[in-house]
Amino acid sequence: MRQAGSLEKRLGRLRRALAESGLEGAIVAPGPNMRYYTGVSSIMLERPFLLFVKAEDGAHLVAPSLEAGPYRSCPVKLEIHEWTDSEGPGGAFREAARAVGFKGRWGVEGRVPFLYLDQLKKVARVELESAEQILQAIREVKDEQEVKLLKRSAEILSRVFEEIPEMLEEGVTEEQLARSVSEAIRERGSGVGDMLVQAGERGAFPHGLPTSRKISRGEPVIVDVSSSFEGYYADITRTFCLGRSEEIERVYSEVLEAQERAIRAVGDGVAVGDVDRAARGHLNSAGLGRYFIHRTGHGLGLEVHEAPYIVEGGREKLREGMFFTVEPGVYLPGKMGVRIEDNVTLERGHSLVITDTPKEFGWWK
Amino acid sequence: MRQAGSLEKRLGRLRRALAESGLEGAIVAPGPNMRYYTGVSSIMLERPFLLFVKAEDGAHLVAPSLEAGPYRSCPVKLEIHEWTDSEGPGGAFREAARAVGFKGRWGVEGRVPFLYLDQLKKVARVELESAEQILQAIREVKDEQEVKLLKRSAEILSRVFEEIPEMLEEGVTEEQLARSVSEAIRERGSGVGDMLVQAGERGAFPHGLPTSRKISRGEPVIVDVSSSFEGYYADITRTFCLGRSEEIERVYSEVLEAQERAIRAVGDGVAVGDVDRAARGHLNSAGLGRYFIHRTGHGLGLEVHEAPYIVEGGREKLREGMFFTVEPGVYLPGKMGVRIEDNVTLERGHSLVITDTPKEFGWWK
Repeated sequence: MRQAGSLEKRLGRLRRALAESGLEGAIVAPGPNMRYYTGVSSIMLERPFLLFVKAEDGAHLVAPSLEAGPYRSCPVKLEIHEWTDSEGPGGAFREAARAVGFKGRWGVEGRVPFLYLDQLKKVARVELESAEQILQAIREVKDEQEVKLLKRSAEILSRVFEEIPEMLEEGVTEEQLARSVSEAIRERGSGVGDMLVQAGERGAFPHGLPTSRKISRGEPVIVDVSSSFEGYYADITRTFCLGRSEEIERVYSEVLEAQERAIRAVGDGVAVGDVDRAARGHLNSAGLGRYFIHRTGHGLGLEVHEAPYIVEGGREKLREGMFFTVEPGVYLPGKMGVRIEDNVTLERGHSLVITDTPKEFGWWK
Repeated sequence: MRQAGSLEKRLGRLRRALAESGLEGAIVAPGPNMRYYTGVSSIMLERPFLLFVKAEDGAHLVAPSLEAGPYRSCPVKLEIHEWTDSEGPGGAFREAARAVGFKGRWGVEGRVPFLYLDQLKKVARVELESAEQILQAIREVKDEQEVKLLKRSAEILSRVFEEIPEMLEEGVTEEQLARSVSEAIRERGSGVGDMLVQAGERGAFPHGLPTSRKISRGEPVIVDVSSSFEGYYADITRTFCLGRSEEIERVYSEVLEAQERAIRAVGDGVAVGDVDRAARGHLNSAGLGRYFIHRTGHGLGLEVHEAPYIVEGGREKLREGMFFTVEPGVYLPGKMGVRIEDNVTLERGHSLVITDTPKEFGWWK
């Protein structure tokens, strides 16, 4: 568990940001943000459960009794309003509303479910607007402890990817390969996050879960896996291919060149849009631009997708302490997909790739 | 993938329920409800992604291009409004708003994130209220295909639990035991859901993740695991104990008696509160009532927690085709917890326990 000092520092940054935006407070959901400020990790379930951080001072938690335990001894000062299944959440929300004294504009984390806010609306008149950007901006630049965990997480997943060639055989199904990768992640001490394994024409849908489809020779296999070490994510994609195929090699080499150009574009103060353009520009000039249908990357931290987002035209500037993916891809409908993804940070003004699984075509042989 | 007929039937039920409530339509999030109506399974990520079902006729999907693929060929008729990362969601929401012609009151699924609705509010003036109860009520009574999958799911997890005694040894950590159980689930063809393993005093927090704590003799170990077969959940808890302890045996026998009384109380037309009372009443008279701090159970289906909720005082009536857990527990702060959970359905007017792992104290020896 984190020390009170670093958590209070985080709350302090949030309070300053809220005050600068003229917001009276922030409404935070269970999950990564609540964990970031309290040190306690909870899953968002159907039971209404919210943290109210006042800009001025004080923090209140409305929590189902079932989940409240670890918060009672958490290192930051919280006033807890619990509710049991028999009582329902109404009373705790009313009690919290009185204690918080809602007024003016409050910022809401983007993932707060409609149902939770419906409870709040019953007991408080409060103007809600998105605090998503504020919350993301605070978590974007990692502190010392977070840097260590993110590097360790990337190291673990890099080693797992180096084991994939041993798991990859003709006739193995996507699901079987996914299972082997999951086991390797757990053996090395990380938790399994998202797991995409897509062979042949299935690779043309960028977000598909593993199926019972068998892997054949001469077709690309996208393996895109995230894993978390003490809550901090790594996210790697490699595209493999058993045997040879000129078409795949050609697409692969363009994607790899696009990815390396994007990584070279990373620098302190560089706009995210410029990194995206380095990849997109190369694929455009290779005649593949229209098959690159997603952003170039996303931030990594307590979430596998968080700010900064490396998007076309994005003006946000990269800074020391940010961690993000660089992952261009090409998707030929009905045919195949190729994607290559590494994790990158900025340290002492320079880019640093923290995932070091090989990536030249055929390294898996 | 499901056939168009059964999906259209489900949409028909939703439309009738919306019309009866005077709602113009329903706003559905990616996840279990979207899967229930379209046959396509998606994860809810940060990219705004909503299904609009009009009460009168027609269904519109706003989807990130990345996720839209499987919906293009899904068996129900959908008008799809896609957006790419470069465009952002604004245009697709505007286009959908024009096509849908929002007016009046719309019902919102409880889990729709604030951020998604924020996009909608920018382009449509629409009065939002919760459609959670409508959506839950429709999915509560399972159709023939769902009944088959839920039974198969329960069967798989029951067999996995029978393997736990072999995995349980002095000195094994909660995490190691969790890993062995996960592997057994995957080997038998289900996906791993939530996984709680809590030894000794850790069992007193009903919702805690496995840690590196070692399991000793003479202490209870709660193992609460959910797994899904083709999307349909089973959820079992057993409390184990290596060696003997009179206190644990006493608590265990009261929890087991409470659970069996609750199961016997299940019947067609019986109020959920009566099932809860059967368990709670027994623990009250055993002097343990104040340590039973949660509801007696929850429904099972495409979600591991869904309606019906077996809560104190609940007046909802149990009906044929419902599937739910019965899981009283006793939590002695700083000391230990005991919980026993089975999955139950109603068939031909009678209750049917579909998880058949043994549960008498000491069966694991």
